[in-house]
Amino acid sequence: MELWYWEEHTKGVRLGLKCTRTLYSGQSKFQKIDVLETLDYGRLLLLDGLVMLTSRDEFIYHEMMVHPACFVHRGAETALVIGGGDGGTVRELLRHDNLKRIVLCEIDPDVVEVSKRFFPEVASGLLEENSRVELLFQDGAGFVEENPGRFDLILIDSTDPVGPGEILFSEGFYSSCFRALRPGGVLAAQTESPFHHLDLMKGVKERLTASGFGLVRFYTAPVPTYPGGYWSWVFASKQGGQAEGRRLHPLRDVKIGPSDEMVLKGLRYYTPDIHHAAFRLPRFVLEALKR
Amino acid sequence: MELWYWEEHTKGVRLGLKCTRTLYSGQSKFQKIDVLETLDYGRLLLLDGLVMLTSRDEFIYHEMMVHPACFVHRGAETALVIGGGDGGTVRELLRHDNLKRIVLCEIDPDVVEVSKRFFPEVASGLLEENSRVELLFQDGAGFVEENPGRFDLILIDSTDPVGPGEILFSEGFYSSCFRALRPGGVLAAQTESPFHHLDLMKGVKERLTASGFGLVRFYTAPVPTYPGGYWSWVFASKQGGQAEGRRLHPLRDVKIGPSDEMVLKGLRYYTPDIHHAAFRLPRFVLEALKR
Repeated sequence: MELWYWEEHTKGVRLGLKCTRTLYSGQSKFQKIDVLETLDYGRLLLLDGLVMLTSRDEFIYHEMMVHPACFVHRGAETALVIGGGDGGTVRELLRHDNLKRIVLCEIDPDVVEVSKRFFPEVASGLLEENSRVELLFQDGAGFVEENPGRFDLILIDSTDPVGPGEILFSEGFYSSCFRALRPGGVLAAQTESPFHHLDLMKGVKERLTASGFGLVRFYTAPVPTYPGGYWSWVFASKQGGQAEGRRLHPLRDVKIGPSDEMVLKGLRYYTPDIHHAAFRLPRFVLEALKR
Repeated sequence: MELWYWEEHTKGVRLGLKCTRTLYSGQSKFQKIDVLETLDYGRLLLLDGLVMLTSRDEFIYHEMMVHPACFVHRGAETALVIGGGDGGTVRELLRHDNLKRIVLCEIDPDVVEVSKRFFPEVASGLLEENSRVELLFQDGAGFVEENPGRFDLILIDSTDPVGPGEILFSEGFYSSCFRALRPGGVLAAQTESPFHHLDLMKGVKERLTASGFGLVRFYTAPVPTYPGGYWSWVFASKQGGQAEGRRLHPLRDVKIGPSDEMVLKGLRYYTPDIHHAAFRLPRFVLEALKR
C-alpha cells in the first residue's frame, strides 16, 4: 500500500508527501491533529489536514520567524509568542540570552503535548521546566488585549488566516499587539506565500499601519513544504525606547557581532548576509504591495 | 473528469498541477513533448514528462538565468545559449542593447516549434527574423568545442542532468565553455534545487574550478513549480578583458545605472537589490559547498 498525504495549495496545485506510517491521529477541542512519518521530509505535523511543519524544513521557518527581529532588537528582555505550540519559535528565542522571559500563548494544549512527544527536537524548550519560559493555554487575542506595555517582542506564529487563526490577522488584534509592546518594541508575524497570498500581505501591511506601526517591512525565505515553496513574514516596529525614540529598522539597526558567533553556529538557514538578503523583495511583490 | 499532472520531485515528494486540457502531445527525435493548460499556472511545457516551464512562473527562472550575468559583464557583445529552446533566455538577453549577436544552440527543433506555437510570449525573440539572433539546431557540447574564443557570455539553460542533458554538467563540457569564452567572459548555468541537489551543486563547483574558472559563485531564487520550489544558478568568470585582467565578480562588478531603467521596468522578479540578495546563500548551502 502506498500512503500519500496531499495538501491542496490552491484548487489547481497540490503537494504530495509519501508517508510510511501514521504516528498519531487525534481530535483536540480545537482541531484535528495528525503526525505522519514521511519518506523524505522526516515527521509531518498536520492541523486540520494542513502542514504545520516537517522535521526536515522547520528550521527555516522557525529561524526566520525569530532571528530577524532578535538581531535588530538587541535590548529585548520579554517576548510573547502567539500560537507556536510546536515549540520551534521558543527554541530559537532561547538562543538569545538577553531574553529573560518568554511567554508562549497557545490555545490548544494538545498541540504542545503532541509536539513534545513526536517532535522533541522542535519542542526542546518546552520539555523541561525552564525559568525563562512561561506556557499559557489561552486565546492569544484575549491575552494580548489584557497585557498592555509588557513585551519587547511579539511573534505571531499562527496558522493560516482561516477558522481560529483568522483573528490573528485582524486590525483589532494588531492594535492590541501595538499596545502590548513596550516602547521600541518589534512585532514579527508569518504572512503566508507571496505566490498565492499577495492580497493578504497587502492587507496585513495596511492593518499594521492603521494599528500604529510606523515601520512595516516584509521578508521572505524558501520553505519547500509550504504553498509555493516560498514564504513571507512581516517585521513591524513601535516608536520609542532605545534609539532616541526612533523605530527600529530591520536593516539599519541590525547588530551582529563577534559575541554572536555561538548563536549563529547553531543555525542552519539564517546568517547576517541572509538577514540583509531576506528583506530585498522581488519586483512583483513590491509592485503588489504598492498598488 | 479531473486531469492532474504529477511530477515526482523525489521518491517521496510530488507536485500536482490540475490541468484543464492537453494542447499538444508529440514525440520528437529526442524526447516526448507535451503542452497542457493548467488551472492555476497557465500553460505547462513538459519534456519527457518533466516540467520545463509554466507561463505563470517562467519569468523568475529566465530573468535569473540572464540578468545577473548581463548586469555584471556590461561590455558583452556576443552571447551563446545552450539549450533554452523555449526562447525565454533569448527574450531576456534581447533586453540588453550591448549584445549584438545571440546564438541559440538547441538540439531539438521541435522544442522551438512547439514554444513558438504555444508560448509566443516566451519565444517572442524567435517568432520573427532578428539580425541579432542566430538559431542553430545542434548538439551544444559539440558546438562549444568547435568555437574557441568567440563568446562574452555563455548561458547553459539545460534540462536536468539525466539523459541528454547530463553532458552539460561535465568537466569536459565546462572546459570547452572556458575556451569558447573570450577573455573576461562569464558563464551562467542552472544548477538545480538546493534542497534536493546539493551534491550536484558541489560537483559543478569542483568541475568549473578544475576547468579554469577561478571565480565560481552560486545564486538562488524561488521557482514554485520546480522541485523544492527553490532553484540555483552558478556564475563563473574567466580572467582577462576589461578590468585589468581581473575576473568579473558578481557583486563587486555589477553596474546598474539610470540608463537601465527601461530594462528594469520590463522585469517582474529581478531588481538591483535582488541581484545582491540572490548571491547570499543560506548556511546549510554554504556548509554543503564547503565540505
